[in-house]
Amino acid sequence: MQANALQQARAAAVAAAHQARAAYRAGSVRPTAGVAPGMTQANMIALPRDWAWDFLLYAQRNPKPCPVLDVIEAGAHQTLLADGADIRTDIPLYRVWRNGRLAEEVQDATALWAEHPDLVTFLIGCSFTFETPLQEAGIEVRHIADGCNVPMYRTNRQCRPAGRLHGEMVVSMRPIPAHRVADAVSISARFPSVHGAPVHVGDPAALGIADLARPDFGDPVRIEPGEIPVFWACGVTPQAAVMASGVPFAVTHAPGYMFITDVPDSSYHV
Amino acid sequence: MQANALQQARAAAVAAAHQARAAYRAGSVRPTAGVAPGMTQANMIALPRDWAWDFLLYAQRNPKPCPVLDVIEAGAHQTLLADGADIRTDIPLYRVWRNGRLAEEVQDATALWAEHPDLVTFLIGCSFTFETPLQEAGIEVRHIADGCNVPMYRTNRQCRPAGRLHGEMVVSMRPIPAHRVADAVSISARFPSVHGAPVHVGDPAALGIADLARPDFGDPVRIEPGEIPVFWACGVTPQAAVMASGVPFAVTHAPGYMFITDVPDSSYHV
Repeated sequence: MQANALQQARAAAVAAAHQARAAYRAGSVRPTAGVAPGMTQANMIALPRDWAWDFLLYAQRNPKPCPVLDVIEAGAHQTLLADGADIRTDIPLYRVWRNGRLAEEVQDATALWAEHPDLVTFLIGCSFTFETPLQEAGIEVRHIADGCNVPMYRTNRQCRPAGRLHGEMVVSMRPIPAHRVADAVSISARFPSVHGAPVHVGDPAALGIADLARPDFGDPVRIEPGEIPVFWACGVTPQAAVMASGVPFAVTHAPGYMFITDVPDSSYHV
Repeated sequence: MQANALQQARAAAVAAAHQARAAYRAGSVRPTAGVAPGMTQANMIALPRDWAWDFLLYAQRNPKPCPVLDVIEAGAHQTLLADGADIRTDIPLYRVWRNGRLAEEVQDATALWAEHPDLVTFLIGCSFTFETPLQEAGIEVRHIADGCNVPMYRTNRQCRPAGRLHGEMVVSMRPIPAHRVADAVSISARFPSVHGAPVHVGDPAALGIADLARPDFGDPVRIEPGEIPVFWACGVTPQAAVMASGVPFAVTHAPGYMFITDVPDSSYHV
């Protein structure tokens, strides 16, 4: 009976992931934190083939912000991580980048793949993946509790360059009660493929963050007395590289609007 | 005083790594298990630039056997992982591959880089890195205790292909007393960048290994009563891909004769 209950829970989680992707494909737009709990979420960046080597090398050199979960080869739209998914339609919101600048946001990227048929797509681990384990340990994830997007910030930490790519690291922030910071570190550390342990605890100024109330991406969140801001490397870092490096063309997810896979977060637990 | 003692220990470990590389550069040839304890060791494969994308993608798709620690760009010989090292000379023994076949073994690869000036070099995590933590936990590492090379085996597990590359996974084997297998798993699991947890415990036949006494690479080791053979993914896997895929030209380390870095193994502990 217990095995059966576990199988049912697993099937329900996969079904929730399928339903979420179908809803986004049909036009629903919302941040994905808290959606399909227990399933791995991913950042996405698609680049013309000519930029693929530079990017894969950039990711290898910066594994904390850019842990690669899968690479979809030029012109393809499927990934082993999500059965039946189409990377052009199944993310709630896309960003289109031209010459290093945000050109527009779209809900369907099919026309962009038609415009650039040689796009190579990279799926990158997302810290939303370990939010379920954090919550299971009784640690409130503020942006989920408050129903908004996670706050993300550009930092003064430069990534190690690769080829034509350079840029700063982007971080996500979660306020954690002081007596739970160690638990949040320990839990997230066991998920190195989805950013792992925090890169910084407390003192935003040391990261070059002037005002936590004004994130560069996503929404600000409440910080209660006794809570410490904890910063994790963030998969929006590739978008910072697109901007800093003047990449001619790229398609990414919009920060906080992730690709939801069929892979249980436990698959990335070490 | 304690901090000072730690600093001295660290400096001594780095000095041991430098001395080892200098000895290999001068012509010493021996397996590197147990050398410069506490310092990360790495597998090496260098391929013409035309093969670099395929290989980096192969490594991304097969992170257990092929965790990439650094990529040295075309024609360069230095790595951030080892101050002053030259990848062409500082490995004790190299293998030269032509059209998927082992052509020769050499102690100095300088002439090969002159022959192929566009070689891109990949340094890949090695399980020797977590042998110091295993020993610190009181687990004997048999090939170190007996002064021979680690036994390595080709398996029936196919890696996920990438471009022109395919091949089977290679594993290393250490006999572990049954009551310490869980400890060996737990300790190595915390080092995912150097192969992490075992891929298989016991029953060699299930991996397609017919006879533990006849490894495909390295030396056979004693298995005492009460010991279980435990198998870790191995960084010789790229050499299996070179053979299976008929790669026109490659230079690798000889199995068990690794590149010793200046990076403490604790850097890869999660």
